[in-house]
Amino acid sequence: MAIVLGPNQFGKAEVRLVRIDRSRTVHHITDLNVSTALRGDFDDAHLLGDNSHILTTDAQKNTVYAFAREYGTGQIEDFALRLGRHFVGSFPWIHGARVEIEQFAWERIVVDGSPHDHAFSQPGGERRTTVVTVDGPSVSVVSGLAGLVVLKSTGSEFHGFPRDRYTTLAETTDRILATEVTAQWRYVTTDLDFGPLFGRVRDALVTTFAQVHSLALQQTLYRMGEAALTAVEQVAEIRISMPNKHHFLVDLSPFGLDNPDIVYQVPDRPYGLIEATVLRDDAPTASDRPQARPDTTSAP
Amino acid sequence: MAIVLGPNQFGKAEVRLVRIDRSRTVHHITDLNVSTALRGDFDDAHLLGDNSHILTTDAQKNTVYAFAREYGTGQIEDFALRLGRHFVGSFPWIHGARVEIEQFAWERIVVDGSPHDHAFSQPGGERRTTVVTVDGPSVSVVSGLAGLVVLKSTGSEFHGFPRDRYTTLAETTDRILATEVTAQWRYVTTDLDFGPLFGRVRDALVTTFAQVHSLALQQTLYRMGEAALTAVEQVAEIRISMPNKHHFLVDLSPFGLDNPDIVYQVPDRPYGLIEATVLRDDAPTASDRPQARPDTTSAP
Amino acid sequence: MAIVLGPNQFGKAEVRLVRIDRSRTVHHITDLNVSTALRGDFDDAHLLGDNSHILTTDAQKNTVYAFAREYGTGQIEDFALRLGRHFVGSFPWIHGARVEIEQFAWERIVVDGSPHDHAFSQPGGERRTTVVTVDGPSVSVVSGLAGLVVLKSTGSEFHGFPRDRYTTLAETTDRILATEVTAQWRYVTTDLDFGPLFGRVRDALVTTFAQVHSLALQQTLYRMGEAALTAVEQVAEIRISMPNKHHFLVDLSPFGLDNPDIVYQVPDRPYGLIEATVLRDDAPTASDRPQARPDTTSAP
Amino acid sequence: MAIVLGPNQFGKAEVRLVRIDRSRTVHHITDLNVSTALRGDFDDAHLLGDNSHILTTDAQKNTVYAFAREYGTGQIEDFALRLGRHFVGSFPWIHGARVEIEQFAWERIVVDGSPHDHAFSQPGGERRTTVVTVDGPSVSVVSGLAGLVVLKSTGSEFHGFPRDRYTTLAETTDRILATEVTAQWRYVTTDLDFGPLFGRVRDALVTTFAQVHSLALQQTLYRMGEAALTAVEQVAEIRISMPNKHHFLVDLSPFGLDNPDIVYQVPDRPYGLIEATVLRDDAPTASDRPQARPDTTSAP
Repeated sequence: MAIVLGPNQFGKAEVRLVRIDRSRTVHHITDLNVSTALRGDFDDAHLLGDNSHILTTDAQKNTVYAFAREYGTGQIEDFALRLGRHFVGSFPWIHGARVEIEQFAWERIVVDGSPHDHAFSQPGGERRTTVVTVDGPSVSVVSGLAGLVVLKSTGSEFHGFPRDRYTTLAETTDRILATEVTAQWRYVTTDLDFGPLFGRVRDALVTTFAQVHSLALQQTLYRMGEAALTAVEQVAEIRISMPNKHHFLVDLSPFGLDNPDIVYQVPDRPYGLIEATVLRDDAPTASDRPQARPDTTSAP
Repeated sequence: MAIVLGPNQFGKAEVRLVRIDRSRTVHHITDLNVSTALRGDFDDAHLLGDNSHILTTDAQKNTVYAFAREYGTGQIEDFALRLGRHFVGSFPWIHGARVEIEQFAWERIVVDGSPHDHAFSQPGGERRTTVVTVDGPSVSVVSGLAGLVVLKSTGSEFHGFPRDRYTTLAETTDRILATEVTAQWRYVTTDLDFGPLFGRVRDALVTTFAQVHSLALQQTLYRMGEAALTAVEQVAEIRISMPNKHHFLVDLSPFGLDNPDIVYQVPDRPYGLIEATVLRDDAPTASDRPQARPDTTSAP
Repeated sequence: MAIVLGPNQFGKAEVRLVRIDRSRTVHHITDLNVSTALRGDFDDAHLLGDNSHILTTDAQKNTVYAFAREYGTGQIEDFALRLGRHFVGSFPWIHGARVEIEQFAWERIVVDGSPHDHAFSQPGGERRTTVVTVDGPSVSVVSGLAGLVVLKSTGSEFHGFPRDRYTTLAETTDRILATEVTAQWRYVTTDLDFGPLFGRVRDALVTTFAQVHSLALQQTLYRMGEAALTAVEQVAEIRISMPNKHHFLVDLSPFGLDNPDIVYQVPDRPYGLIEATVLRDDAPTASDRPQARPDTTSAP
Repeated sequence: MAIVLGPNQFGKAEVRLVRIDRSRTVHHITDLNVSTALRGDFDDAHLLGDNSHILTTDAQKNTVYAFAREYGTGQIEDFALRLGRHFVGSFPWIHGARVEIEQFAWERIVVDGSPHDHAFSQPGGERRTTVVTVDGPSVSVVSGLAGLVVLKSTGSEFHGFPRDRYTTLAETTDRILATEVTAQWRYVTTDLDFGPLFGRVRDALVTTFAQVHSLALQQTLYRMGEAALTAVEQVAEIRISMPNKHHFLVDLSPFGLDNPDIVYQVPDRPYGLIEATVLRDDAPTASDRPQARPDTTSAP
């Protein structure tokens, strides 16, 4: 029985890049956080400290910046595809690449009712994301959003759950439902108009959250996923993670006050955490399904 | 020479409170982070461990929740004034109170072009703030905003600075100007319609940032403060803090590429930090000027 | 082609629990962050909003606290095993559970040269971790550490790497090597004395980091993993993630100063990220290999 | 009534600097976060965008790195004094400077019972701090610590407090007392051996926390301050801020379990916040008392 090297990867994480399109009077801004990772034959680096196969993480960073100049960024999926394919084609011992991009939104400042040409403000919170994985000839695109905080002040029930020795929760037919949506959906091909598709998936998620009368956060999650798949046929599956950000009614009876669903305390932790995948029943196998990050199983 | 107790205060920090107005079909949400602190004669607690003057921080928290039910929250300034005055009036040995409130915005989710009655999303980032200080009969209101991230992709120069042995920075007539504005302004009275006034100050700040052709971040800051004072005559002074969030052009010449103000790297640290107060020349003395937090001098 | 529910789980995340053992004069403190998740037949909750299979996350939280009282916590692995097996045995439709625990260290305050009975300080930073996964009859224990920040001020080289168009990095025979180690190792059985084993793996990792003359961060990582497997035969494999926290020599030549490996700037981002698994060649298949969190593939 | 410029300052914040002393086989590491700010006549920059008085924040950063090479860092107080005096002497229009330094600790990794020459680990959490303020000929040194997390599992009571309508808290004669100490103390002169003095103040604070039987957090705080002043006669006053990190006993009675001070839940927010200054009765006036940051009143 010997000790051996298992799955491995290396890259540059969190390259912060802002690109300004100044080609016209009305400027456009692209604000990205790019992480790259390479997979292949790096055994000698691990076993011998021989770096002859190590395309430095510094060079990976330089490539990100240079490509943003040479080719532009475009949609984050297209930028990630270009980077991933470049890395895999750069040296014969590099067999795969994983490129993750997070995009921060900017809005135009409105002055006298008109959007300004070159002044912007940043809403914060929500980000658009993508993970492109190149594995030899196979390429997958898993796009998503993170940090989408939503709340319904009514239209949410929770009852009918089983009671064991440790169950004390009261049933309710009206509660606040609040969560921070993280969603990742896998596209069936790589040759798509990713910008509009992102908008359609996002709209399906948000609209469904608002409209579904919720009997369980699981049900809301499923309906959101179903709506996303229905809205965009090029999405094969979607994984959604929704923490239940609890809002607890404060007991004001010691002060002679009632509290008919008005005043809530909001703890930071713990929180419920509901996660599920919704998919088409002919979706491909798990090997190229959505991944949030370098695979946290033993295969990085 | 003896050792004595100096300035002191105690309170409950960061009471997270959400209040839902369900009185009509269209719900309203108020999302606050409230911190209270009391000042007065607490010598025996410090010197003897005698708590007979200590209005517990737990009771302070309860008061925040109970008042939100009994009186509503209204504008954060009005809620803070009510709390501060209550505490000072509660026991004879409590002479002062400091109430700080931070408000998180929520927007209605738009479904089929219409804002939803009870479904909301949270933009994140920017918060509205207030600090009310009650000191016996004297009361001050210092309101503000924090986390307002803005950027101009042109219209910013920086040159003409002196050069010492350690100055290597190149002069520029066109750079990205990016910052995260924190502003606090002191109102001259406590009986104001704080909601619209907040909107007018904020609008003055943002519009001026967008419109001023910047020769120095100091100049932009001053013009923003001046605009705020001009917009609202009930503001006596305003303190603005603006980190210079540097955007550095990436040198792409090693790769045979130019970079005519297109691709930037954005370091997290260090950052410039520009801070100044703009005020009317008849503004009162410093003792009741804007404060971001319990005075960090020896007087808490 | 229909839309269907894929892998899913739900639970309570980040239950913060402190347990004091006051059974003797010398107190002991256990400080944990516990997250639980259940897997099984929850289809009706997703598809119909029927909660009859949903063991509430509130009950899961209660169970964590009650078990800490009823059985004590012991080693985090044992506590997680007890919780996981309980949940899977609680209702027939619950087939699996994932229990993740993070432990925060406390040290005794030393007074007059002696450790205090009941006063503690917390070093911060490093945490001990475990993830126990119960899947029907199968149980895996993956333990680890996170936040272990280490640095070598010499004994690290980096050269011999290939150069493409985007490679500008200079070779070096002496650099600072700094990283924050995250490691997760899978034990071959569940009936072990986990406390001492943790100490032996940790010691192997830290000692090897210090002693190996590094030619590549990959080499250091591999040797650390190899040392862990050598030290504890009950470890089947170990996954290590090591960000390369760059320390860049500051160019002081504009100021007429040399800088012979003395003064460094330390950017926050980007950073290299080196990840690999080291394992015994007879280690089981990937299905029960180390996982940092609910599987980020489509199987949560 | 005109609008005018009030107090203002500008500088470079959070310059991250690591310095390695490699002069002997046993290396030494100094890990700092340095922020500088200048005060003086910068009116034209604000009013006219004229930068002829603006010593760029980039030059301030360069000075920090260059001085670390040219003079070494030494104790953080000495490094801050050197920087502050340099800036004030650099141009006639610069009248004051504020230099804040935060130091991160590193410990030697122990291999085979011996501390390693050049391999270190970082405990995290606690930092040593200083703020040096140069105001023309006047110089003050306010040193401190932050992030010192301590806990007592017994030896803390809380009772005898007044009860108003909103007081529901039960009295207790035995509770957990946990806090994160921030302390800042002002030295009476600038020509001191700051390293040992820091150690003596810190030891006084920690030992007193452990030893005092607490009747109120205020009492513990006062006794800690008193001990610091007693330990080091060159300290004129000390300001201490101690959040009360609540540990609440979990009610396990619904599960048929008692909980005799064993299992606690630990919320993140809200927390009590206790702040006070302890000083010698002949301490100078407030104008040069401890400050945590650029004065948050209108005088930055």
